[in-house]
Amino acid sequence: MSDTPTPPALGTLGPSGTLDSADVLARVAEVIASRRGGDPDKSCVARLFHKGTDTILKKVGEEATEVVLAGKDGDAAKLVYEVADLWFHSMVALAQFGLTPNDVVAELARREGLSGLQEFAQRSAKPAA
Amino acid sequence: MSDTPTPPALGTLGPSGTLDSADVLARVAEVIASRRGGDPDKSCVARLFHKGTDTILKKVGEEATEVVLAGKDGDAAKLVYEVADLWFHSMVALAQFGLTPNDVVAELARREGLSGLQEFAQRSAKPAA
Amino acid sequence: MSDTPTPPALGTLGPSGTLDSADVLARVAEVIASRRGGDPDKSCVARLFHKGTDTILKKVGEEATEVVLAGKDGDAAKLVYEVADLWFHSMVALAQFGLTPNDVVAELARREGLSGLQEFAQRSAKPAA
Amino acid sequence: MSDTPTPPALGTLGPSGTLDSADVLARVAEVIASRRGGDPDKSCVARLFHKGTDTILKKVGEEATEVVLAGKDGDAAKLVYEVADLWFHSMVALAQFGLTPNDVVAELARREGLSGLQEFAQRSAKPAA
Repeated sequence: MSDTPTPPALGTLGPSGTLDSADVLARVAEVIASRRGGDPDKSCVARLFHKGTDTILKKVGEEATEVVLAGKDGDAAKLVYEVADLWFHSMVALAQFGLTPNDVVAELARREGLSGLQEFAQRSAKPAA
Repeated sequence: MSDTPTPPALGTLGPSGTLDSADVLARVAEVIASRRGGDPDKSCVARLFHKGTDTILKKVGEEATEVVLAGKDGDAAKLVYEVADLWFHSMVALAQFGLTPNDVVAELARREGLSGLQEFAQRSAKPAA
Repeated sequence: MSDTPTPPALGTLGPSGTLDSADVLARVAEVIASRRGGDPDKSCVARLFHKGTDTILKKVGEEATEVVLAGKDGDAAKLVYEVADLWFHSMVALAQFGLTPNDVVAELARREGLSGLQEFAQRSAKPAA
Repeated sequence: MSDTPTPPALGTLGPSGTLDSADVLARVAEVIASRRGGDPDKSCVARLFHKGTDTILKKVGEEATEVVLAGKDGDAAKLVYEVADLWFHSMVALAQFGLTPNDVVAELARREGLSGLQEFAQRSAKPAA
């Protein structure tokens, strides 16, 4: 998936100089969005966008089946790998409709009644400073 | 899903006093893990753990189909809702095998060749300070 | 699924006085079609039709996941049971669009280049005499 | 799928000289079974058997997603095509465990309480005369 020769510049690091989970998902979403309109011969993600919604959604279905297979094998490393594939292709589906993982995380926060949600939702709507 | 009367105490807030994406996923994973061994009559998540791996994986398959349906409808709000369901149930599957969303995020970071990964992976293995 | 008190009269028997595969699929399709507009409280199939296309298609996705789970278990009896569920709900989806298993069988015959296809396709378009 | 240069000889024709549904499914199952151990470079089905259970089951999941997509499009011809794909790959999964479509049809007959089932089940266990 890291099929670009020149990845976009890195996002801001956390207080301790490390990437945190929010940074990673936001960065992956940026990489995905940057593939839109890219050369379908050079990038899997560009090819998915080029083929359109059905192909993207089909991929989500496929990756879910792979998660089921990995779970039945009880293979933890494979499960992590397949869930990563599933989340990645979910993010491609989100991007197809102009959405980001932040929208999903805000929805999860809302459901769990996590305090700070209001602020989070506001922050997630703005580009990272 | 917020079917517990007394949610665990809130995680640390970010520098600006808000929850960030990492906090939210980690918190949702904590809530999920806290349901293990809970009363299946009181919590959907406790019920999933009680029924076991097949029921959990079946739920991942179901939610993926819902994402496909929402995507075909081109309904952005519904898509966010269904991807949130899919990620939530993926996290239940991860929890069933002692894994967390951080493992998935670390795998995504690794693929994208994001710098700071080493630090991230180390940090993600430790409980948040 | 045989949740009707008065099943429709039985189809014609084969030359040896037994039901053959064609009879069974056609009969199941008749039973499914007879549930359209039925009482959703009395019949699962009536409930599926009542809820509409999304619910029916979601069921196809669920049953496919059950086939995957049964296949991973290597449990032959369970696999037969789950494939029967999958085919049954596929037939509900077909019925939702005025189609029958004969249409699917004709398509399979066409692909395999089975002779007699022309006649079969014609016959399948007519109601059984 | 008809990727064999020399298809096996045709089954018996029905009373009117046409193939019926039972013949078609049985014939497709024979063609599938005949691909086991075939050259993976020459036949898609041989390739599926060669790759094994996970690949076969993954295909069932994929085809179910295609049925969902076709159903959402409300495209009858596409739905028939995709259900045919789904049933075909279900039959490959059955064959992987030594099972046939007759086993599925017998299960459907049992559920619907179709008379003649006893005879049908017995007949389905024997090779066609």
